[in-house]
Amino acid sequence: MNELDLIDKLRPLAGPAGLQLMDDAALLDLADGQQLVISTDTMVEGVHFPAGRIGGGFSERLLRTALSDLAAKGARPIGYSLNVSWPAGRDARWLDGFVIGLRDGQSAFDCPLIGGDTTGGTDRLVASATVYGVVPKGRMITRSGAKVGDIAFHTGELGLAEIGLAIVTGQSVTVDAATRHRAEEAYLRPEPRFVVRKVLRDFATACADISDGIVSEAGHIAAASGVAIDLSSKVTEGAEFGDDYELLFCIAPEDEAAMRDAAKSIGVSVTKAGQVRTGQGITVDGKPASPKGYRHEL
Amino acid sequence: MNELDLIDKLRPLAGPAGLQLMDDAALLDLADGQQLVISTDTMVEGVHFPAGRIGGGFSERLLRTALSDLAAKGARPIGYSLNVSWPAGRDARWLDGFVIGLRDGQSAFDCPLIGGDTTGGTDRLVASATVYGVVPKGRMITRSGAKVGDIAFHTGELGLAEIGLAIVTGQSVTVDAATRHRAEEAYLRPEPRFVVRKVLRDFATACADISDGIVSEAGHIAAASGVAIDLSSKVTEGAEFGDDYELLFCIAPEDEAAMRDAAKSIGVSVTKAGQVRTGQGITVDGKPASPKGYRHEL
Repeated sequence: MNELDLIDKLRPLAGPAGLQLMDDAALLDLADGQQLVISTDTMVEGVHFPAGRIGGGFSERLLRTALSDLAAKGARPIGYSLNVSWPAGRDARWLDGFVIGLRDGQSAFDCPLIGGDTTGGTDRLVASATVYGVVPKGRMITRSGAKVGDIAFHTGELGLAEIGLAIVTGQSVTVDAATRHRAEEAYLRPEPRFVVRKVLRDFATACADISDGIVSEAGHIAAASGVAIDLSSKVTEGAEFGDDYELLFCIAPEDEAAMRDAAKSIGVSVTKAGQVRTGQGITVDGKPASPKGYRHEL
Repeated sequence: MNELDLIDKLRPLAGPAGLQLMDDAALLDLADGQQLVISTDTMVEGVHFPAGRIGGGFSERLLRTALSDLAAKGARPIGYSLNVSWPAGRDARWLDGFVIGLRDGQSAFDCPLIGGDTTGGTDRLVASATVYGVVPKGRMITRSGAKVGDIAFHTGELGLAEIGLAIVTGQSVTVDAATRHRAEEAYLRPEPRFVVRKVLRDFATACADISDGIVSEAGHIAAASGVAIDLSSKVTEGAEFGDDYELLFCIAPEDEAAMRDAAKSIGVSVTKAGQVRTGQGITVDGKPASPKGYRHEL
């Protein structure tokens, strides 16, 4: 198995911009009035994903978590590129699983492969997905637009992915079968929240996905926006682990009723998470907090 | 040293599209009538670059080799994103060198950092540079446009990088001081051939950079174009190692004089490398050849 064999396996995943993976480069068009949003995520097997699992879980989670950043920006995905470095000795079956995970992920979000690079030589699988999306000009939702007085909300349910990881890594978890299933899905197949795109575009002053824990993500929004955010302990408890890939977003207080109606109409639960204030940093119920989210020591 | 410290070191490298590395995403604009060209390269320390050298050599070479693909496409670089996974224990000085190498590379080509991701957890340094460039709509030079009857040329001098690698890795090499310097530069700081952009746009029917050896790259052009290419043994001898990052391109025979004049006017040497024929695959002086370029077993 060499890199040309792998490229042959990946070729059916390529969209038009990928030029059948026959060229040195991809070629992307934007429509008039669009801007390109780019985000990238790296996963290391054994660090960000349990080692020893089938290839499809790794690759689908990689793509979905990368796409989550596009969802947080209010962008529509149009393609992704893939860099993958393999340890020696992965068999063809594992590789087929890896390709199937990508196929399932990209099919779900209409986001074809457009290019990449493959190498060997690492002790662990290292893969990066760089995702490309579009927004109408000037309509990307940044981290930097939160205003004093805004209210912060999060989508969905926090803490599920932590339970999912425990299940996936064989720890004993006492939850009912339905929760078990939802938790595994939250970890293995997190759902980029593209469904709230219109809600975000209509109301959000700032947004980020909660990949590194809610305190950490609120801290990023606060720093980029030059504000402080006071979170409620009701939402931070059990939600500092991260990996939930729900969205944290701010809106003007006068938009609350309209935003709630809009979210309800698309069946997405939203929960008040906190309040944007003057100052800097994050408090929880008014007390200073520091992020306990995932952070790598180098 | 954690990933936030590293991001702080990288922040001065960010261009406007990078949003000060404060967001989840980069935001790129294209001018009307432009298309975006994307290419990406991964380097693994100890595989694609000698282990144990200072950080700046690795990062500058990574960026330059990635940019070489944009040069081959006739594109103008506008930015790059970076994914980097670190083994534990790199010291701050090494990291500073890594940042300086990027800074030097991006300054040379007016190509700012726009985003990326950093992780730990690998045994070797693994880094990917994804580069973004623009071309006027419809003007990207592909691998797939070579026509029967075209003549293939390469730029510059092949084989220098192989000598450079030997020098860099401490092997005994008997060359004069000037060649020694040029060879080291060719390996450590390969020059993306943006200088030939106008020549390519005016004349090239197909182009690729010679990163994997001339036989291998000619094979990619032949396969993408549905033609055969007969190379001259005068150029293939000593040029199968790859890593030269010169360009291999095809032109219509009637354009030879004009192309040579244009190349001469910008001080770039071009050498006839072969002939595009009907059929498929590569021959050298009419005899079947198979690529001996670098190929990873997975």
